[in-house]
Amino acid sequence: MTHTAELIAVGTELLLGNIANTDAQILSQGLSTLGITVHYHTVVGDNPQRLRQALDIARTRADIIITTGGLGPTYDDLTKQTICAAFGRELELHPDILETIRSFFAKTGRTMPENNVQQAMLPVNCTVFDNPVGTAPGCAFEEGGVHVLMLPGPPFECRYMFENRAVPYLQALTDGVIVSHEIRVFGMGESHVEEKLRDIMTTMTNPTLAPYAKPGECMLRATAKAPTAQQAEEMLTPLVGQVEEILGDVVYGVDVGSLEEAVSRLLGEKGLTLSAAESCTGGLIAKRITDLPGASRIFRGGVVSYTNDVKADVLGVPREVLEEYGAVSEPVARAMAQGCRKLCGSDIALSVTGLAGPEGDDRGNQVGTVYIALSDSQGTICKKFSCGMGRGRDRVRSSAAQNAFDMLRRRLLGLPL
Amino acid sequence: MTHTAELIAVGTELLLGNIANTDAQILSQGLSTLGITVHYHTVVGDNPQRLRQALDIARTRADIIITTGGLGPTYDDLTKQTICAAFGRELELHPDILETIRSFFAKTGRTMPENNVQQAMLPVNCTVFDNPVGTAPGCAFEEGGVHVLMLPGPPFECRYMFENRAVPYLQALTDGVIVSHEIRVFGMGESHVEEKLRDIMTTMTNPTLAPYAKPGECMLRATAKAPTAQQAEEMLTPLVGQVEEILGDVVYGVDVGSLEEAVSRLLGEKGLTLSAAESCTGGLIAKRITDLPGASRIFRGGVVSYTNDVKADVLGVPREVLEEYGAVSEPVARAMAQGCRKLCGSDIALSVTGLAGPEGDDRGNQVGTVYIALSDSQGTICKKFSCGMGRGRDRVRSSAAQNAFDMLRRRLLGLPL
Repeated sequence: MTHTAELIAVGTELLLGNIANTDAQILSQGLSTLGITVHYHTVVGDNPQRLRQALDIARTRADIIITTGGLGPTYDDLTKQTICAAFGRELELHPDILETIRSFFAKTGRTMPENNVQQAMLPVNCTVFDNPVGTAPGCAFEEGGVHVLMLPGPPFECRYMFENRAVPYLQALTDGVIVSHEIRVFGMGESHVEEKLRDIMTTMTNPTLAPYAKPGECMLRATAKAPTAQQAEEMLTPLVGQVEEILGDVVYGVDVGSLEEAVSRLLGEKGLTLSAAESCTGGLIAKRITDLPGASRIFRGGVVSYTNDVKADVLGVPREVLEEYGAVSEPVARAMAQGCRKLCGSDIALSVTGLAGPEGDDRGNQVGTVYIALSDSQGTICKKFSCGMGRGRDRVRSSAAQNAFDMLRRRLLGLPL
Repeated sequence: MTHTAELIAVGTELLLGNIANTDAQILSQGLSTLGITVHYHTVVGDNPQRLRQALDIARTRADIIITTGGLGPTYDDLTKQTICAAFGRELELHPDILETIRSFFAKTGRTMPENNVQQAMLPVNCTVFDNPVGTAPGCAFEEGGVHVLMLPGPPFECRYMFENRAVPYLQALTDGVIVSHEIRVFGMGESHVEEKLRDIMTTMTNPTLAPYAKPGECMLRATAKAPTAQQAEEMLTPLVGQVEEILGDVVYGVDVGSLEEAVSRLLGEKGLTLSAAESCTGGLIAKRITDLPGASRIFRGGVVSYTNDVKADVLGVPREVLEEYGAVSEPVARAMAQGCRKLCGSDIALSVTGLAGPEGDDRGNQVGTVYIALSDSQGTICKKFSCGMGRGRDRVRSSAAQNAFDMLRRRLLGLPL
């Protein structure tokens, strides 16, 4: 049986533009992986009449309704009451849930306000989704062929509760097991990737292959449905291999979170350390590497050389090179990488110097011109890039960082640069 | 007359969770500022039947419908056709718009594909929203008391077209002018801010004051409606002053984008330069300062000292201090700031050393323990913070950066630390 879901987010803060509805994105991705089609997202405020109207419409066109938000203890959190009224259910107190909420407060050194008692009120005969990462439990029930699931609104809780509570509930509604893998691609545009894979994507039904745009790169999700996880994996292995063969070395990883995660793993495996000398990226490379837990095993540190003085005095770039070629040049990039490697005592150093904009420089370099160098025991390589495609300072900087990580990946794997 | 708006986003990519509906957030913020209430957001796929259903529902409950997306040249971009069918309008070719689209392609060195001709087809008797930042024009018309506005989907285009095309159209529907100012607050929790301002917020109708949550800080928006902008400003000036008086020096700016922007302005005004020595923030402070265009006027550079060797060899932290007190300690933070100031030749240096997690250290420091030091011509100050409130590595790091910027702000303004 195929299922159709509708997502209803409850919260006036969404209608005021205070926050974006990222819960809908998280849930939509997960539902797509489960093979459940989503036809509508709806957002309503903390208003029982309008939530009721949204529920009445949703139940005519979906057999799975998932609400996010409106489960808090304050008077404007009315999701449970309104849903119960719409579907003719009573609320009842769950003493064990109340105990859990009390102990959640106790753990963080607080006393539970009496308001929170109503968070332990849940629909009669529902499946309780206990919430170890917050106070509001979620729940699910089925009424007249429609499954209603309620999840808390804060994105961190919503994601946890969806993945660990709602997904098992929904999987029980579908036959078999769904497994997916994410194939990450850098260095080939989305339309080019789609062109190369169009034949596979349009002819397959199980497993499937779907592209997702990510800032500055592409992601493909391969998904298979089978009676067991092992059978699903057996369907996915050849598909992932086929994609890697077609796309080649622009595939930088499968089930890896980012380029910096891929290079961090490679550095760890090879027992090598990194440092970074950054001009136009201004610390972004160091920041992205140290976003990852355990970064200290592979990252020694770096220098943000935002002025020529720091390039010369800290990194040791000769002043005459800076004067002759300008800060945005291959000789400076090379000297920055060499100086940084020596200064930080790392096996490998990356350097980036370029123009993030908004203005060009007095040597005729365009905004987006970036030199990236890599220095290791075998020598120093440098490449010139044009970053950001005219879409502003942030894009130039993030694209420069992406290209630096990819240069490192290619060097570590012995791939052509 | 008060208006009620409904936002309809069109795009299967939203229902697949490929992207979040950030357009709705942008528009909701803007509509709120215009005094237009939003009751629902709806998201539908590239499907004419379901879009038609969403339109039929929306026109019964809103007098302003704004669609985003579905204006592209491909076969699945059906917004205009479906809206015209629903509201009984014909589409007609606008030769001037076609010319604009052709020249947009020419400017970027491409030939316009014939598919794009349909982007110049617009409803009869509509207000055309020409699009200088993309190919798809938008438009608006009124039918039976309902205003329908169509905007392109890509967030960059959507924001531009909303602010520069839709807002003037909508302002003509309302009497008077709406002006708003954003008051930024760091160092006082949202609930505490609301408590202090509750009396003002609940009793005012024009001007109004509304709180917005931001990661790690608060924002208040003061909005006034008046016949002229000057009159609106005259209403806002005392309100903003009152808020500043009530909240005190936790208000770090009005109409400023971030703490780093506030301190960058202060440094520029005083003609002072900054550098940063970062351990646990790993480049985040430098990255945030250099996110701002023109950062090179006030930021000289910095060192990411992720290992003790870099702290000692580059920043000159004495090895015996590192051994005696450990990397996460006041003496090390002080030595980092002093060393960085000297090394980078800046007037002021910030330093951060702490535990971002996930693990604590072998000296009994908890995750979130952060020492921040500031060194300038008057000496060095250092404070210990507990950052992130147990919400993970990213929160520890961003909170540490926020606190460092605030320490700098307070030092520059001579406020108590």
